[in-house]
Amino acid sequence: MLNERLIFVTNDDGYQSKGFRAMVNLAREFGRVVAIAPERVQSGMSQAITITQPLFLRSVERGDDYEIYAFSGTPVDCSKVAFDHVFLGRKVDLVLSGINHGSNAAVNVMYSGTMGAAIEGSFYNIPAIGLSLDDHDADADFEGAVMYGRKIVTAVLDAADRLPRPLCLNVNVPRCKAEEIQGIRLSRQTRGFWREEFYERTDPHGRGYFWLTGAFQNAEPDAEDTDEWALAHRYVSVVPVQTDMTDYKQLKALDGVL
Amino acid sequence: MLNERLIFVTNDDGYQSKGFRAMVNLAREFGRVVAIAPERVQSGMSQAITITQPLFLRSVERGDDYEIYAFSGTPVDCSKVAFDHVFLGRKVDLVLSGINHGSNAAVNVMYSGTMGAAIEGSFYNIPAIGLSLDDHDADADFEGAVMYGRKIVTAVLDAADRLPRPLCLNVNVPRCKAEEIQGIRLSRQTRGFWREEFYERTDPHGRGYFWLTGAFQNAEPDAEDTDEWALAHRYVSVVPVQTDMTDYKQLKALDGVL
Repeated sequence: MLNERLIFVTNDDGYQSKGFRAMVNLAREFGRVVAIAPERVQSGMSQAITITQPLFLRSVERGDDYEIYAFSGTPVDCSKVAFDHVFLGRKVDLVLSGINHGSNAAVNVMYSGTMGAAIEGSFYNIPAIGLSLDDHDADADFEGAVMYGRKIVTAVLDAADRLPRPLCLNVNVPRCKAEEIQGIRLSRQTRGFWREEFYERTDPHGRGYFWLTGAFQNAEPDAEDTDEWALAHRYVSVVPVQTDMTDYKQLKALDGVL
Repeated sequence: MLNERLIFVTNDDGYQSKGFRAMVNLAREFGRVVAIAPERVQSGMSQAITITQPLFLRSVERGDDYEIYAFSGTPVDCSKVAFDHVFLGRKVDLVLSGINHGSNAAVNVMYSGTMGAAIEGSFYNIPAIGLSLDDHDADADFEGAVMYGRKIVTAVLDAADRLPRPLCLNVNVPRCKAEEIQGIRLSRQTRGFWREEFYERTDPHGRGYFWLTGAFQNAEPDAEDTDEWALAHRYVSVVPVQTDMTDYKQLKALDGVL
């Protein structure tokens, strides 16, 4: 097709996850799809990159309008090999990462491999959307995520030329039936942090081990402009993401101290 | 000692690295040290956490005023096990991460395990400093990094009570002789991104593989208020780091689009 769109799809749950398949099928409604996802589950891999090991790229499946590859690296490695190797010289219209099994609202944006890959995609000046469902179940129901994902992709593609770059959206969908979703809310990242409780046990060889588990501490549960508030009230939250980590207020406070 | 300070040390190059030993020794000048570093090199691990595997903590070495442990997880896992298990109920005065072999200026702050661990420490309301030397050599000369690290730690401990929290500093030291360093510059994160060149070869079994390599593209090489400018002119750069990733400008631009 003339002027057919080219869409890059990736995720952090690996190429075999149900959410990834849902995203590939959603993307195919909008153009030709090249999907490169991790070989194995890479949840919580953040913006991690693989420096000290070789990486292997493997063709998994292809059809008339899509190609799926598995890559042995992190989600960000997937974005990097896509843009700095596979797509070299080709115009890409959109990056879609997910659909993630689990919310990436609030500070989760920093730990999320899904959002790591989306952010990396936006560095190449391509609009990027990370899409996550607030449900960790391997067999989660993605109907609402697909329905609202479709609305958001349509709106972003329509407006892409007049929106500033980089453009990277962290989209989170509540866990409920599609028809129970209240709509879309532009939000900001909720303040708050995870406090962990290390599950501590002994392995069959007598060695003690730890297993990470914890709970998110919301520092502003009543703030209606936050992504956690939106999710708790069955809205789809959309937080645009930027990557200047400079703390400008602290910069002023430090003047004279250093 | 009464009112003795307690200092947590970690890094991403692993407990055997030269820079880590330099940091432990620097920290011992300021108080009692508990150091928990990764078992293996974890460069480029960003804010990654280990969700799907058990983790092992091992005592490596101890003296009158310090304890060193190796942990099988990521740098952020090290901070989490320190604050949510080892230190429970104890007041910690400072988090020191590094000394990293390699610069974490500009967008490297997002890929860096050293800064991931420092940021995580600052989530516990403890002043945190990530210290990095712009030299990847395993046997790098840390004299200048230690000298300026000492100045910055002294200043932060003196001012800790009157500085806003969270307080997290990304400190980078140029690769030159200590006496050639021009001083300290408060800076902002340089805009720019990495473009990769995938080194592509074939393994002994005939499988093609990729190896990540690339170069940082500085989008504003002449901006004198940036960390890259400071390093290039032999200054120690200090960038305070915040973790609200919300793009507020984009939030306004999206109004009416979504």
